[in-house]
Amino acid sequence: MLLVLKFAGLCLCLGLCRGLQFNDVDEEAPSAAQTSKYGSLWPLPQEVNIAETSFKLSSSTFRIVDSKQSSAGPSCNILQNAYRKYFEYMFGVARKQEFGKNGRPGLSELTELQVWVTSVDSECDGYPSITSDESYELAVDQPFALLVAPKVWGALRGAVLSYEFLSLLLHLLCFKIFVFNLMFQETMAMNKYNVFHWHIVDDPSFPYLSRTFPNLSQKGAYHPYTHVYTPADVKMVIEFARLRGIRVIPEFDTPGHTQSWGKGQANLLTPCYSGSKPSGSFGPVNPILNTTYDFMTQFFKEISSVFPDAYVHLGGDEVDFTCWRSNPDIQKFMEDHGFGHDYSKLESFYIQRLLDIVTSTKKGYMIWQEVFDNGVKLKPDTVVHVWIGGGSNEELSKVTASGYTTILSAPWYLDYISYGQDWQKYYKVEPLNFNGTEQQKKLVIGGEACMWGEYVDATNLTPRLWPRASAVAERLWSHQNVTDINDAYSRLSAHRCRLVERGIPAEPLFSSYCPREYKAV
Amino acid sequence: MLLVLKFAGLCLCLGLCRGLQFNDVDEEAPSAAQTSKYGSLWPLPQEVNIAETSFKLSSSTFRIVDSKQSSAGPSCNILQNAYRKYFEYMFGVARKQEFGKNGRPGLSELTELQVWVTSVDSECDGYPSITSDESYELAVDQPFALLVAPKVWGALRGAVLSYEFLSLLLHLLCFKIFVFNLMFQETMAMNKYNVFHWHIVDDPSFPYLSRTFPNLSQKGAYHPYTHVYTPADVKMVIEFARLRGIRVIPEFDTPGHTQSWGKGQANLLTPCYSGSKPSGSFGPVNPILNTTYDFMTQFFKEISSVFPDAYVHLGGDEVDFTCWRSNPDIQKFMEDHGFGHDYSKLESFYIQRLLDIVTSTKKGYMIWQEVFDNGVKLKPDTVVHVWIGGGSNEELSKVTASGYTTILSAPWYLDYISYGQDWQKYYKVEPLNFNGTEQQKKLVIGGEACMWGEYVDATNLTPRLWPRASAVAERLWSHQNVTDINDAYSRLSAHRCRLVERGIPAEPLFSSYCPREYKAV
Repeated sequence: MLLVLKFAGLCLCLGLCRGLQFNDVDEEAPSAAQTSKYGSLWPLPQEVNIAETSFKLSSSTFRIVDSKQSSAGPSCNILQNAYRKYFEYMFGVARKQEFGKNGRPGLSELTELQVWVTSVDSECDGYPSITSDESYELAVDQPFALLVAPKVWGALRGAVLSYEFLSLLLHLLCFKIFVFNLMFQETMAMNKYNVFHWHIVDDPSFPYLSRTFPNLSQKGAYHPYTHVYTPADVKMVIEFARLRGIRVIPEFDTPGHTQSWGKGQANLLTPCYSGSKPSGSFGPVNPILNTTYDFMTQFFKEISSVFPDAYVHLGGDEVDFTCWRSNPDIQKFMEDHGFGHDYSKLESFYIQRLLDIVTSTKKGYMIWQEVFDNGVKLKPDTVVHVWIGGGSNEELSKVTASGYTTILSAPWYLDYISYGQDWQKYYKVEPLNFNGTEQQKKLVIGGEACMWGEYVDATNLTPRLWPRASAVAERLWSHQNVTDINDAYSRLSAHRCRLVERGIPAEPLFSSYCPREYKAV
Repeated sequence: MLLVLKFAGLCLCLGLCRGLQFNDVDEEAPSAAQTSKYGSLWPLPQEVNIAETSFKLSSSTFRIVDSKQSSAGPSCNILQNAYRKYFEYMFGVARKQEFGKNGRPGLSELTELQVWVTSVDSECDGYPSITSDESYELAVDQPFALLVAPKVWGALRGAVLSYEFLSLLLHLLCFKIFVFNLMFQETMAMNKYNVFHWHIVDDPSFPYLSRTFPNLSQKGAYHPYTHVYTPADVKMVIEFARLRGIRVIPEFDTPGHTQSWGKGQANLLTPCYSGSKPSGSFGPVNPILNTTYDFMTQFFKEISSVFPDAYVHLGGDEVDFTCWRSNPDIQKFMEDHGFGHDYSKLESFYIQRLLDIVTSTKKGYMIWQEVFDNGVKLKPDTVVHVWIGGGSNEELSKVTASGYTTILSAPWYLDYISYGQDWQKYYKVEPLNFNGTEQQKKLVIGGEACMWGEYVDATNLTPRLWPRASAVAERLWSHQNVTDINDAYSRLSAHRCRLVERGIPAEPLFSSYCPREYKAV
């Protein structure tokens, strides 16, 4: 996942945020020791203004509608879908109930959320991109709430917030159990993640079903039928993401981490030698054969048409030179090209040709930091993915001094688990805390929380990811000065209970409870 | 959870164990690098003999029946329940299919599993106890398999194994998806855990609904309605456990870890002082008031009738003396009793009176090791629970040298998570590896895997517990010389896939897959 640092202007006025903490609604009291004045908002918007008035809300009268001036009307799938979803979230099984009767006397009623997309081109039929405008403003006042955004992407982000706020309102009036089965991307959207970095193949398995080279998954996947992503699956993931304003950037990592590629594509990997004979095992992609580049040309031609995003992640990390060193043909090639014994030059030779191939497909690319470190010539719009080291680090200085945009993952490898509240560690990182000019800092276009799969699958992914990834989301989404760890604890506790309430098994931060606990079915 | 070290004699003869690994059934091939000759057996029985013959199995003809000589007949609920359950597990949704047609030609058919309980008293209507005989023998041969056990408890253990073996047989013949929603205790039984140590109250919450003192949960639980265990809940847990041969030992930990008790029972906890005035906060149970002992007498009278097991766990760990030290009344009491400044003497004073109270209810007790360390006088049948320190430790030498039976938890605190395959660490512990005579070693009656709740709730309990607790189960259940870590890896991988197949989200040991993955609903 990847969350671009984008500072969306936001003004929010609502009276119920503090009301949530009233003592007379103890079913709703968060279990946190200290409650936040922002209730359970997560991640925190850039700006919040809270007025001391309250409203009531009724399922029988409340509507989410397009404002008359909006450039996104009933034909805008993205928004119509979002309206349906958030209405369902808000009222759920409780929709059949009469809320009005339960309302507190004397409260004004909020009857509408109007959504106004202001640009002439709403981008409703497009894909979210690196430059998408996700800003919005939400004002909640009688008799209707108004969500204003230049593009649909901002309207989507604002709709999440609207839902969170309006739900608080609702919970005060009526205590109901909502049951939803949500998917991974749904949870991403709830946390405002906006790029899904899909590391879709690796050493153990090649689940991507390629139309051009079907043997790759036929022979390289864990199982050719039950453990593959078909073209239809991929399409569904992309469309599902699009409807939530999430970009999908696939990674096809080469030349290392490619053991699974070799099973379905002969001569793609380097044969390793034991003394003067092939050992029977294989190393990274073989960079000295023309057939390798023919294969990559055809393969990435397919990839460029399957994935609509402007970027592809090409990997390039952790190339082990042992096998290359053992192979006499490779040794000869190194001599012929004057590479001496510097195998990083051979790696660069490969990557350079790969980048040219991908450039010819009209895609931009992301690469792991080693490619930059090895001095490969990169296009100016390349995104360098920094993953080595701790929080703030020199690599960001170097990469941005060279003028490249960059994404930071190093401090957020969520697969590394430890006992205790490690979300605080993720939360306290300041990604721009490195030596560099203002100009350089602007080149840090985002951060990414990573969950690698060595110890993770469908059985434990969700509780391991959430709410730890929510902590990263706020660091990347909210203002740099949102750093109060106690306030964060309180909101994040409530946020995780909100996820739990929606059927997402997000784990507890510490000894605590949620009003409506997760129920394994 | 607690698993008593019990070495049950077992003879098992079956031909299909190796057959499972045949290359022509790759849907069933475990993803482990090395497969075990024991297939997916977990935990490993004391003795296994594998013959080189195979059988087939048909849902239309196969039956689980009581042998004619058995002392446990159709009126034995425990066994009849188990038969239904394992039959369902074995054939599940596939029951409607005709397996015979899919059988390999030339295989003899296995038509029956006969279960023979040999003792005159089968103990069918009793509760499992610390001395329950859980031994059994299983022989699989044509035309029927025979499970022989002195008591129903052994028959239950053997039924798990029968199911595992016979299911392997079945999977060779037909590939079907079984879907079950199993509960925690069900998974315990699958792993041969035989005692559920229910740490039912602690500082943050008092969920046990006491008939005698309903205010304890009314005011001390997270929530008085949604987060309590009612008498009916407790009864259900006990009966559900009984049907699976699992004892339920509740822990009511005092005098420390009692913050939640104080909310619903005035004057029970010690008022802490700040200088010469009460600070408003409270410490451990107040040991100097007669009302405290009156309360405990009534409370444990109820507990002794609610929980049928012969033992109650009385806690006694981690008593913080700070509050006692601050209180002038306590100081005076210390002086009057000549305790000087040694507050462990005050703790012993309290515990001694508590033990007398519990003894009067005709229950035996378990206590955490601090109680023993502080020199409290204990009944000879007291079980001392060792939790401090690493794997082998001196505490076991001391406790057993004093003649007490003991349970070891120290190396198996599963709530302490870390990156990587920590199951190996749990697996490699040898609990009897301490200085002591053979007589002393016999006093180590079991071990316990602990999952404390600071960072765990329904969202992440199951994947965090399994299969790491399965590793502990084999260490405690199987023979001391079962130590091959590669063999264990292979079987444990397959065992965890079996749990996954039953709908239990048991996490992966390492990069791998299961033929039928967990599907979050």
